Amino acid sequence: MPSHTPSRRTGPGDTKRRIQAVARELFVQQGVRDTSLRQISERLGITKPALYYHFASREDLVKSIIQPLVDDMERFVAEREAGDPRRLLTDYFDLIWRHRDVLVMIVRELSALAHLDLGERMFAWRRRLIVLLLGPDVTQAQHIRATVALGGMSDCAVEYAHLPLDEVKPVAVEAAADALGLP
Amino acid sequence: MPSHTPSRRTGPGDTKRRIQAVARELFVQQGVRDTSLRQISERLGITKPALYYHFASREDLVKSIIQPLVDDMERFVAEREAGDPRRLLTDYFDLIWRHRDVLVMIVRELSALAHLDLGERMFAWRRRLIVLLLGPDVTQAQHIRATVALGGMSDCAVEYAHLPLDEVKPVAVEAAADALGLP
Repeated sequence: MPSHTPSRRTGPGDTKRRIQAVARELFVQQGVRDTSLRQISERLGITKPALYYHFASREDLVKSIIQPLVDDMERFVAEREAGDPRRLLTDYFDLIWRHRDVLVMIVRELSALAHLDLGERMFAWRRRLIVLLLGPDVTQAQHIRATVALGGMSDCAVEYAHLPLDEVKPVAVEAAADALGLP
Repeated sequence: MPSHTPSRRTGPGDTKRRIQAVARELFVQQGVRDTSLRQISERLGITKPALYYHFASREDLVKSIIQPLVDDMERFVAEREAGDPRRLLTDYFDLIWRHRDVLVMIVRELSALAHLDLGERMFAWRRRLIVLLLGPDVTQAQHIRATVALGGMSDCAVEYAHLPLDEVKPVAVEAAADALGLP
């Protein structure tokens, strides 16, 4: 059917997707708060009203980009049934991997907090810690294991902030040591 | 010395610390973007000019609250020498634990992104995943181990977003399985 040939590139649905693609790229590069709708429309070569036709605000646009991750997670936790834990870990990894650009965008957004470049710094600290843990000649596999260990511990500090240190620390450290493959 | 007696509660340094304490509390509770300087000054019973005397903007205030974590991390990664990895994991956990209120504040800030309650949702998903992984009668220690496993995998998706899935996933899943104590 002619209306579905590849040459038909400027349909409304297509413009919407192009806006989202450019917005995602700019949000990841420079943060949501430092990206204006004007910048997005200029990059696309469309007018601001044309952009507003699809998204009433930057918040609307952010929401439309994050929503697929939210929907996918909601579906996963609602429909999934208990079973082989390794299988579940694998499928969960596939899910977060599918949405990794959105996750990167969220983490980058932290950088905007007080203009402290927190996101970038955190990655730099992490890399330095991994060298301290495993030495300078670390394999990619060791690097990934260390990221699980250190990232996981950091999540524990947030998730169990209300518990006594003595109850959290020994278990979190042992889990991290196991993730790292320490003897 | 009389100037150091406990009754002298309203010195400038003390007011500054009181502002920071109230701001941290409100930032953690309701997010940075939904907390105004007016709200902070009202909660303290001081005037807005009195607050501005110490902090020129909300960003200044946020920065002053996050800065100790940044300084502590910078010092840790700069001065620390390689050694026993388990010792390093333990000391790193102590560091992030000291700053856990700031970390909670940062994660909560994600909730403000597009008003999607992302921070709260992420914790809810995590808890549901843990039940799926380990069943409903999970001990606190198992819960902590699962948090290391799931949080660590999530960090891998962000940190290695540019690598091929095949190189990241098998190692990340095995590290998570080890953190979880799977056979």
